[in-house]
Amino acid sequence: MKALVYHGPGAKSWDEVSDPVIKEPTDVIVRMETTTICGTDLHILKGDVPAVTEGRILGHEGVGTVVEVGSSVATLEAGDRVILSCVSACGSCSYCHQGLYSHCLAEEGASGTGWIFGHLIDGTQAEYVRVPFADNSLHKVPDGVSDEAAMMLSDILPTGFEIGVRYGRVKPGDVVAVIGTGPVGLAAIMTAGLYGASRVIAIDLDDNRIAAAQEFGASDGVNSGVEGWEDRVMAMTDGLGVDVAIEAVGVPTTFTSCARIVRPGGTIANVGVHGESVELPLHELWIKDIAITMGLVSTSTTPMLLRLVAQGKLQPAALVTHRFGFDQMMEAYETFSRAAQTRALKVAIAR
Amino acid sequence: MKALVYHGPGAKSWDEVSDPVIKEPTDVIVRMETTTICGTDLHILKGDVPAVTEGRILGHEGVGTVVEVGSSVATLEAGDRVILSCVSACGSCSYCHQGLYSHCLAEEGASGTGWIFGHLIDGTQAEYVRVPFADNSLHKVPDGVSDEAAMMLSDILPTGFEIGVRYGRVKPGDVVAVIGTGPVGLAAIMTAGLYGASRVIAIDLDDNRIAAAQEFGASDGVNSGVEGWEDRVMAMTDGLGVDVAIEAVGVPTTFTSCARIVRPGGTIANVGVHGESVELPLHELWIKDIAITMGLVSTSTTPMLLRLVAQGKLQPAALVTHRFGFDQMMEAYETFSRAAQTRALKVAIAR
Repeated sequence: MKALVYHGPGAKSWDEVSDPVIKEPTDVIVRMETTTICGTDLHILKGDVPAVTEGRILGHEGVGTVVEVGSSVATLEAGDRVILSCVSACGSCSYCHQGLYSHCLAEEGASGTGWIFGHLIDGTQAEYVRVPFADNSLHKVPDGVSDEAAMMLSDILPTGFEIGVRYGRVKPGDVVAVIGTGPVGLAAIMTAGLYGASRVIAIDLDDNRIAAAQEFGASDGVNSGVEGWEDRVMAMTDGLGVDVAIEAVGVPTTFTSCARIVRPGGTIANVGVHGESVELPLHELWIKDIAITMGLVSTSTTPMLLRLVAQGKLQPAALVTHRFGFDQMMEAYETFSRAAQTRALKVAIAR
Repeated sequence: MKALVYHGPGAKSWDEVSDPVIKEPTDVIVRMETTTICGTDLHILKGDVPAVTEGRILGHEGVGTVVEVGSSVATLEAGDRVILSCVSACGSCSYCHQGLYSHCLAEEGASGTGWIFGHLIDGTQAEYVRVPFADNSLHKVPDGVSDEAAMMLSDILPTGFEIGVRYGRVKPGDVVAVIGTGPVGLAAIMTAGLYGASRVIAIDLDDNRIAAAQEFGASDGVNSGVEGWEDRVMAMTDGLGVDVAIEAVGVPTTFTSCARIVRPGGTIANVGVHGESVELPLHELWIKDIAITMGLVSTSTTPMLLRLVAQGKLQPAALVTHRFGFDQMMEAYETFSRAAQTRALKVAIAR
């Protein structure tokens, strides 16, 4: 088969590789129909994720069709159209019992569990993929839900919702600020209304992205490159700050901006993937009664979000800005990695 | 009357000063019966809290008797024996409606609200004190509850419970670590069982304090001065770490220790008052699904805690290790400020 293979920092190619085979009785093999690229894949390509070794097939999102089923798989059969969750989990350990699948304690060979696709085992930017713990890590796609919509449930939509909106404890009437309006920030913006946010402020350096965010449900936009932007946020919130500040960039400055715009009693929900430590001004914050949350998505809310997508109440397919065939994988990377110029949000790569 | 007056960094004396008078219709005057000293008073005396100006009477804890009542006070009368809450709050603003009294939005003259006693207005280390927003900031003491027990409800017991146990989201079966077993740490240890903690690990540098913590309900003790102490905590918790790590010291090292011993999905509840920023290793923690909480007590749980004290289910008077008369105020400070030597936890200063 063909697959996108990582060859060390800065190097990748669309290679002919061996087809995957079933290794464990809980595995299935999925024929990929549609896949995509995540910002995390770009981090890996920079060499920021040393656990990813040369020869690894990248990708942790996508939709496909089950073609082969391990002997102990109970709920899936060949022909099922499925969403591949970015997190692989046994469903039986103490963390899975809490719905915290990202911290699943089972061992998948020596590769661990949690986020392993395109990281510790071969991923979804390929014609076929082996899916461990398939009963607990795949979701059947209802008729009427497109591949592109379904694929947003692999990672992006549950990440924005679970790590941004839910960890941020958004409640009715809250004013929510989302710093960084890339795909995950937009996913938080799209789902903040599920808990009744009264106002969602999209904050970014790029006016185009702010305008796009308003199409995804943001009520207000603030350009954080303009001096006095924090005062503008304060002016929107009775001078006290926002109830929930969602960090969806992953750099120290945006994190500390969240600490400045959150109101006493509010929450900073960190969704960004950080590459360095940040200075936490605890001498100023201890008295503010704030909570700071963070985490890797568990995709425990994927079934619920999928119902809302099937009902048309959430329309995540709108995140797809560019479309490619499998044989255009390298071109898709090129477009996605220059998102500032190409205005790419999510790319869909389909057979 | 006599009162303990702050005269700038390092300087205090037990002075003859004017009696307080009612300024607002919501005020009462309380004749202090028993007061105490808090670690915060020592910080003020070092000059760490510049908002405290020379001539200020210190203290924000105590029990006394109402002697004079403002014209709009509805629920109190002369003769009532009351706990003075360390937090003054109007009871009517949006923050008070959430029970977040520490962020009350009302103005008490130019002094603000929240923690103002012994800070922005004259405090409780005095023979008499003016109490603003008295209907919402005093609690009548039931018969059978001693002054010493009641006084622990001014600040210490609700701080450990609200900012440690509640913000830490302690739930049945949790393993809770408390780093720092001073009075507030002990208050968290005493109240962790209210939410069903299965194990409470007292962590301190001082074996005497660890032994004392075990008398207040800690199931285990670990000396954090002994190499490998974090491994000992891990060994007590299936290798994954504690569910809740409560920081009750207020320095960067104990905060970062909490980050190392907390399990994925757990909570760091910061209770300590910090004087500098801390380095938050967000590049390691973002994936751990932890929450970090912090805050200033609201004393919204004082009525509930008082019921448990009245029933004998909590016995906070045991925190009192030393007793003094009002005329021994300077001696009380001397004993409390040398707590490492005198083994003082709380001192009771009574008429």
